[in-house]
Amino acid sequence: MYFVTYQYNAFSEGGILTADENKVLPITTIGKLMGLKFPERLIDFIPMATDDLLLAIKKVMTEHSNLGIHLNLVKLLAPIPKPPRNVFCLGKNYADHAQEIKNIPSMGNIPENPIYFSKLPTSITGPDTVILSHAKATKQIDYEAELAIIIGKEGTDIAKENAEDYIFGYTIANDITARDLQKKHSQWYKGKSLDTFCPLGPRILHKNDLRLPFDLAITCRVNGEERQHSHTSRMIFDIPAIIADLSQGMTLLPGDIILTGTPAGVGFALDPPQFLKHGDVIEAEIEKIGILRNTIE
Amino acid sequence: MYFVTYQYNAFSEGGILTADENKVLPITTIGKLMGLKFPERLIDFIPMATDDLLLAIKKVMTEHSNLGIHLNLVKLLAPIPKPPRNVFCLGKNYADHAQEIKNIPSMGNIPENPIYFSKLPTSITGPDTVILSHAKATKQIDYEAELAIIIGKEGTDIAKENAEDYIFGYTIANDITARDLQKKHSQWYKGKSLDTFCPLGPRILHKNDLRLPFDLAITCRVNGEERQHSHTSRMIFDIPAIIADLSQGMTLLPGDIILTGTPAGVGFALDPPQFLKHGDVIEAEIEKIGILRNTIE
Repeated sequence: MYFVTYQYNAFSEGGILTADENKVLPITTIGKLMGLKFPERLIDFIPMATDDLLLAIKKVMTEHSNLGIHLNLVKLLAPIPKPPRNVFCLGKNYADHAQEIKNIPSMGNIPENPIYFSKLPTSITGPDTVILSHAKATKQIDYEAELAIIIGKEGTDIAKENAEDYIFGYTIANDITARDLQKKHSQWYKGKSLDTFCPLGPRILHKNDLRLPFDLAITCRVNGEERQHSHTSRMIFDIPAIIADLSQGMTLLPGDIILTGTPAGVGFALDPPQFLKHGDVIEAEIEKIGILRNTIE
Repeated sequence: MYFVTYQYNAFSEGGILTADENKVLPITTIGKLMGLKFPERLIDFIPMATDDLLLAIKKVMTEHSNLGIHLNLVKLLAPIPKPPRNVFCLGKNYADHAQEIKNIPSMGNIPENPIYFSKLPTSITGPDTVILSHAKATKQIDYEAELAIIIGKEGTDIAKENAEDYIFGYTIANDITARDLQKKHSQWYKGKSLDTFCPLGPRILHKNDLRLPFDLAITCRVNGEERQHSHTSRMIFDIPAIIADLSQGMTLLPGDIILTGTPAGVGFALDPPQFLKHGDVIEAEIEKIGILRNTIE
């Protein structure tokens, strides 16, 4: 089951794709068909989404397969356009990426513990949007294709074996980074948080359609040229380990977004380094989830 | 003018202290006296607070000085208990503090550029509350008294000379830190973001009562023993510099909270290091603003 947030007739709300993935049905409409009142925003629906409710929704959608708005009539937005707090991120979580940057000063070696940082909610942008170039602030914009976990349920001190219970689903993120700012400010926060530096989407695949452990191909292309190609099974800290460790003493909330790190092939590790420039089209693709496409201003 | 968020009869809302600082008047009540509808939450009032409106409010409060709820009847909360995104923080922004930790591995030297990181909104707690000890996650809890800036107006690429226009006021924060986690995860995010690790308050002093540049004594005591004592004029990057640099390419929003760094005297720089333990009472004090007092679980 794929969840989206979309804009139609200047109004944005959450929806679920039909079985053929060609149409979207508003969550509020599904509620009406079931005699229930569902919230407009996907983030408000997430904590309600029990297995039983999703089964009932699937049944109703099958019975009303004629309904829905064609995807070519809507504009998909980031599935969670305005999370209530910063996006959680992991650094250097693929061994191949940690390896390719180990000779770059200040980037260090393969981490023994997860490295966490955050991106501002205002950095989030949707699929098929323009990433601002911020020419006054940076000269070194780089891509990082990543699998994003969407948290479904509040939890603290979550055990690894229970981690999947706290997940709602998975989407794609591009952890756009100003390499010069990342270095300049020592901590990575600002270089990761400029406006539009977190493309997210195009859709969330529910965890029931992608049980742990899974292994998906993850790819990034710049103007059609493949730059990153790896598999999510190559994460150093896997998804249950991330959720268990991150939630230790720190409450996770429904709608929280966790980017799980990027594989090898980022622009600044190329020889010579190659940064993104005006008009570049970046495609982050993850098998079964989709393609997240954005253009540099 | 002092702004607070308080709880009274199980209901919490924003208020303004009376001239004698003994009573609080709900913002909604002030609105009614003026024939206007004001929001309940302080964060929603902040973007409305023009100089003209504040002058009119002061006049109304003088005319109705008999009104108000005595402070000993209310419980003060963090003035912004649930900001819409993470708390912005600066690291090593007092030369004396940068100096005291320069021999501690991985802490480096006096920074040439601001170091930014963030704390989760769920780390915020009010004055006179208990800071959770998180015994399973950390053995090294430390204090950091800090001046906090509250942003009043949305802005990007703000010039230093205009920085004050974008400020609403100032309060006190204690940037509680798990030193072992700060080191373990390389980036400081997690060690700074455990639940209750950001005491904030007790009140916001409006910028019109504290014009830039100012110099306030900042102190931190543990069980009455003075550990930190400095002046806000000793910041390496001053308030206009922080706002100008931070907002470069990154939009600041009303209600954003920026912690400006801590002076020398933190527990882990003492010889031998001293960490906070069960029952310790920490008081962060800033001249003209107040005292922020919390106890370790």
